[in-house]
Amino acid sequence: MIVVMKPGATQQEIENVEKRLRELGFKTHTIRGEVKTVIGAIGDKRLVKEHNLSQLPGVEGIVPIMKPYKLVGRELKKQDTVVEVGDVQIGGKKLVVMAGPCAVESEEQIYEVARRVKEAGATVLRGGAYKPRTSPYSFQGMEEEGLKLLHQAARMTGLKVVTEVMDTRDVELVSRYADILQIGARNMQNFRLLKECGLSGKPVLLKRGLSATIEEWLMAAEYIADAGNQNIILCERGIRTFETATRNTMDINAIPVVKELSHLPIIADPSHGTGNWKWVDAVARAFVAAGADGLMIEVHPDPANAVSDGAQSLQPEKFARLMEALKPIAQAVGREL
Amino acid sequence: MIVVMKPGATQQEIENVEKRLRELGFKTHTIRGEVKTVIGAIGDKRLVKEHNLSQLPGVEGIVPIMKPYKLVGRELKKQDTVVEVGDVQIGGKKLVVMAGPCAVESEEQIYEVARRVKEAGATVLRGGAYKPRTSPYSFQGMEEEGLKLLHQAARMTGLKVVTEVMDTRDVELVSRYADILQIGARNMQNFRLLKECGLSGKPVLLKRGLSATIEEWLMAAEYIADAGNQNIILCERGIRTFETATRNTMDINAIPVVKELSHLPIIADPSHGTGNWKWVDAVARAFVAAGADGLMIEVHPDPANAVSDGAQSLQPEKFARLMEALKPIAQAVGREL
Amino acid sequence: MIVVMKPGATQQEIENVEKRLRELGFKTHTIRGEVKTVIGAIGDKRLVKEHNLSQLPGVEGIVPIMKPYKLVGRELKKQDTVVEVGDVQIGGKKLVVMAGPCAVESEEQIYEVARRVKEAGATVLRGGAYKPRTSPYSFQGMEEEGLKLLHQAARMTGLKVVTEVMDTRDVELVSRYADILQIGARNMQNFRLLKECGLSGKPVLLKRGLSATIEEWLMAAEYIADAGNQNIILCERGIRTFETATRNTMDINAIPVVKELSHLPIIADPSHGTGNWKWVDAVARAFVAAGADGLMIEVHPDPANAVSDGAQSLQPEKFARLMEALKPIAQAVGREL
Amino acid sequence: MIVVMKPGATQQEIENVEKRLRELGFKTHTIRGEVKTVIGAIGDKRLVKEHNLSQLPGVEGIVPIMKPYKLVGRELKKQDTVVEVGDVQIGGKKLVVMAGPCAVESEEQIYEVARRVKEAGATVLRGGAYKPRTSPYSFQGMEEEGLKLLHQAARMTGLKVVTEVMDTRDVELVSRYADILQIGARNMQNFRLLKECGLSGKPVLLKRGLSATIEEWLMAAEYIADAGNQNIILCERGIRTFETATRNTMDINAIPVVKELSHLPIIADPSHGTGNWKWVDAVARAFVAAGADGLMIEVHPDPANAVSDGAQSLQPEKFARLMEALKPIAQAVGREL
Repeated sequence: MIVVMKPGATQQEIENVEKRLRELGFKTHTIRGEVKTVIGAIGDKRLVKEHNLSQLPGVEGIVPIMKPYKLVGRELKKQDTVVEVGDVQIGGKKLVVMAGPCAVESEEQIYEVARRVKEAGATVLRGGAYKPRTSPYSFQGMEEEGLKLLHQAARMTGLKVVTEVMDTRDVELVSRYADILQIGARNMQNFRLLKECGLSGKPVLLKRGLSATIEEWLMAAEYIADAGNQNIILCERGIRTFETATRNTMDINAIPVVKELSHLPIIADPSHGTGNWKWVDAVARAFVAAGADGLMIEVHPDPANAVSDGAQSLQPEKFARLMEALKPIAQAVGREL
Repeated sequence: MIVVMKPGATQQEIENVEKRLRELGFKTHTIRGEVKTVIGAIGDKRLVKEHNLSQLPGVEGIVPIMKPYKLVGRELKKQDTVVEVGDVQIGGKKLVVMAGPCAVESEEQIYEVARRVKEAGATVLRGGAYKPRTSPYSFQGMEEEGLKLLHQAARMTGLKVVTEVMDTRDVELVSRYADILQIGARNMQNFRLLKECGLSGKPVLLKRGLSATIEEWLMAAEYIADAGNQNIILCERGIRTFETATRNTMDINAIPVVKELSHLPIIADPSHGTGNWKWVDAVARAFVAAGADGLMIEVHPDPANAVSDGAQSLQPEKFARLMEALKPIAQAVGREL
Repeated sequence: MIVVMKPGATQQEIENVEKRLRELGFKTHTIRGEVKTVIGAIGDKRLVKEHNLSQLPGVEGIVPIMKPYKLVGRELKKQDTVVEVGDVQIGGKKLVVMAGPCAVESEEQIYEVARRVKEAGATVLRGGAYKPRTSPYSFQGMEEEGLKLLHQAARMTGLKVVTEVMDTRDVELVSRYADILQIGARNMQNFRLLKECGLSGKPVLLKRGLSATIEEWLMAAEYIADAGNQNIILCERGIRTFETATRNTMDINAIPVVKELSHLPIIADPSHGTGNWKWVDAVARAFVAAGADGLMIEVHPDPANAVSDGAQSLQPEKFARLMEALKPIAQAVGREL
Repeated sequence: MIVVMKPGATQQEIENVEKRLRELGFKTHTIRGEVKTVIGAIGDKRLVKEHNLSQLPGVEGIVPIMKPYKLVGRELKKQDTVVEVGDVQIGGKKLVVMAGPCAVESEEQIYEVARRVKEAGATVLRGGAYKPRTSPYSFQGMEEEGLKLLHQAARMTGLKVVTEVMDTRDVELVSRYADILQIGARNMQNFRLLKECGLSGKPVLLKRGLSATIEEWLMAAEYIADAGNQNIILCERGIRTFETATRNTMDINAIPVVKELSHLPIIADPSHGTGNWKWVDAVARAFVAAGADGLMIEVHPDPANAVSDGAQSLQPEKFARLMEALKPIAQAVGREL
């Protein structure tokens, strides 16, 4: 870390900072410029309790040099992580596609979707049993009954299950039915839930928060990893910006940036990222071309009657056509579908 | 609600939408423009299960006319809510000031702060026992031990206690020690926590999420109210924008907007909103002048050695001077401190 | 347009609004709901002088129904616009690639780049002679001398020229040397410059402003079209968000959205959109896959010595490899390169 | 500046960077950490031509230590700048209030407003003769005729004139009628216009761009100062964020931050910052309490018939009441009105 002193900081103030840094276990190295003095502090900032060095007299600011994450970063682990969920690999040559309805609504609905997305080439079934809804008056999910239906539909079709867990109290229950635990965007910094999912031993799909920087997202993943679980799949699902034409703004840049900073696999959710089924195809193609490890896509047999997110759900035949369209793009970037 | 049809929507598509609306219990009223047709639907959108009308053939979009919240809105309750916490009133003529350290660190620290902020005129003691930290390697709080210290310090000085609850499993425990439950910005859309706090019967301080619109914030409050608890205090603590000079951007506009839309009291947290103690005074004055019902301010006896957020904490004597400076401003807007 | 009245608006207030709307040439249609009354106003809002209907007593707000643009929108012109620049077509089956340095620096530099990007398959040469720089102390461009070099390098290699014009006073001069006038992101709402470029008769490349919504961007294009010039190429170059890992956030959603709303061709600039050459390839591939009509890419023979934007410039051999990588993706979406 | 080397950078790469820095006139100072090496470069980055050091092999990134502006910064000039416009001082003890309509519409309108705002205590008359409008179909201003009316109305009432100049070609003409040249938010990075206004010798009011950081805003001011003109008044008018309840988000934090970084006076425009006259009072009070040097407020005798921005304009009597309400707040922060 670099401590930048104010213009006019006194010799005593500088020495005081050096002393404090040494007390904290850093080696110091001071550079006196014409206007400002900076003090380089060598050591691992992650290992010391935070100290508010910026509050010491004469200090203008602190510039960190090391990344704040280690377990999920590339600095200490170069090779890509491949998350294995039974025979499904996430982060390998073959792209993963997770598809299904926003919410589990009924036995017929989830079986119909499971069958259709399996036929089209998906390997993981998505579907919410606990739904985070902006309004308390909206449908909140079928809860355990939904989990059971999801589990059965997946088993009958040979799919794996990913489903959201919203509450620390539900981690155990959801783990009984799910192959992958999903942490939603609104819970990305629900640190207790991150830990609990980390401790569950299940692979975790971690959606990016609506206003989370890539660094904060990786720090959230670090919570899970720090609990002993490195089977983490990142999922870009759009961030909040000033643009109102779309539900969110999909951050396509995040794919190459995350690939550089982290060894974890990353997939994309163009359904939430756009908020409109008409735009899902173009954005799904884009993410595959950019190097994403897979996609999560909402599919519903009858979007006009879906209890939630119908506007962004593809009909099964449209989903099947999209899967075909993605194949040559996957191939063009050295992947397969 | 208004359903806007696409240019070129057919007569049959229009009739189909009208039929569906009537099935959902709406009265319809169709206006044929030169290019587009719109269908007014009269009835309460909040009371019907959501239907994805935007998915019907020929529909371009839906424009809601009614606010999505009712319990926390002004449309049905005109007069201001005053939340009573023992003898402390929040939302009345007298402004409330909640002050204390970011985290409870030790008996000496919390007693010292409690004594000093009480002397300066605060009526509620803040302090975190469970800390939401971006990094798993940062101090996470003293937990129940911290709650006890906070409670004792408050009782000895005649202050009330506000403290954050991060997990549904902790609501009962925290409720034993706290007078007001705080829901943090990162948990503003942790819907299960909102409900659980709503059910606790305790007054709830609801911080605005980093990327929450005012409407989403009021919808989060609606969750608490819907659980039977209208003792809600809103707290503006800054939103996330592109500006990096400050930790967050304080949304001063939110004060008059929330006052117009909702009857709930609203306070401001300039410590988190700026991220730097040097800017807290100016912003605290601004929020009082704008009509906020109070402030939440971080105070620490030794900011340079605080285990968290030292950079934005005021020393007790600076806090006391700020309290003096706020008095004539409070008076200028018809309030007192 | 729909005028929404406040709950409790009086009969007289409603009639007053109806009267005013009729005076403005609208037909009105009033729908009385249980809580609010709304008044549909039929007619073309674009043709009436703005009137502050929202200021009339009893009015809560105005909801526009028609798009505010017409010349650049799909509502009145369904088929795609193809901009012809000599034998180069923009918006047709063949993708256009505009490549070259951020700034023209010397004869050797621009000739070298022109030759290399032409070999790799680009058809338009980019290069700045007038540079918008955040700092007055940065290099501001070679001005007319730069325009001449750019023009000669293009002519010798059979490329077309696109270059930025920053000032209404320069439109005539720049038009002498350029085949396409570029309006930069910071000038997207420099309305006088939009008009002047519209009047020049030259094709115009209109970059999206850093904080411009898609609607505002199309309205800026409408200014050019309204001046009699429909040869407009839109260019997505990233918007400003809270993310700091990248220079900007590329809005991939903008491709399908703009394609739906407008008939104009749209290309993408991943160099500015990411700010780092390492991420350009992935994002370039993504935009081609999403359906963009082309790319604008910064190429410099010696990025480490570029006078500006070296960090985001590709070396010529890397650019050539990218062009190869893009071919199968273009093919996969029915285009060619 | 600090150059941060990648983990694993070779000795030769490090020496190469040191060599390059010395060639550019810097003294270097290298600190070898356990994982990364950083190289401190002492010297003034502003005085060297930009070199893309980040492109050198082994370099991870560059961290600037000095502020990029100098003329407008506090580092070299400590005392506050007071801009004198005849007998009106901006930045002194007395707050300045600039008031008037969005656009000059007619002789009656501008005279009426001038008289009323003068009576209420304003000292500068605002009014647009050239209007930047999102739509080409909206009223674009009365141009020179508007300037004349504005000038006459101001002279007859003893007010100064501030009005926007949108085009470099108009600077001379506008300077004949205006006491202060206004550069609008959309032109904040119209660098040629900044220079031309700087050369005009007139005081310049520089509005903050919709998506401009405080640093970029100060750099825009630096352009004006670099052209020899330090009579600059900054104006916070709201930034673009995700919030849609208000037209913009007023950045109240900007007041103490700008006061710390720069010696220039700063005022606030709550009319544009909120977009709704109902919220102007609260936000105006807030900015005075935060330490702004004045306000710019839209006032129109008949907002419901204003040709632009009626929704955010105050009626003259409301403006007069606001001026009264501001007095005790100004006094509370040691200022007068």
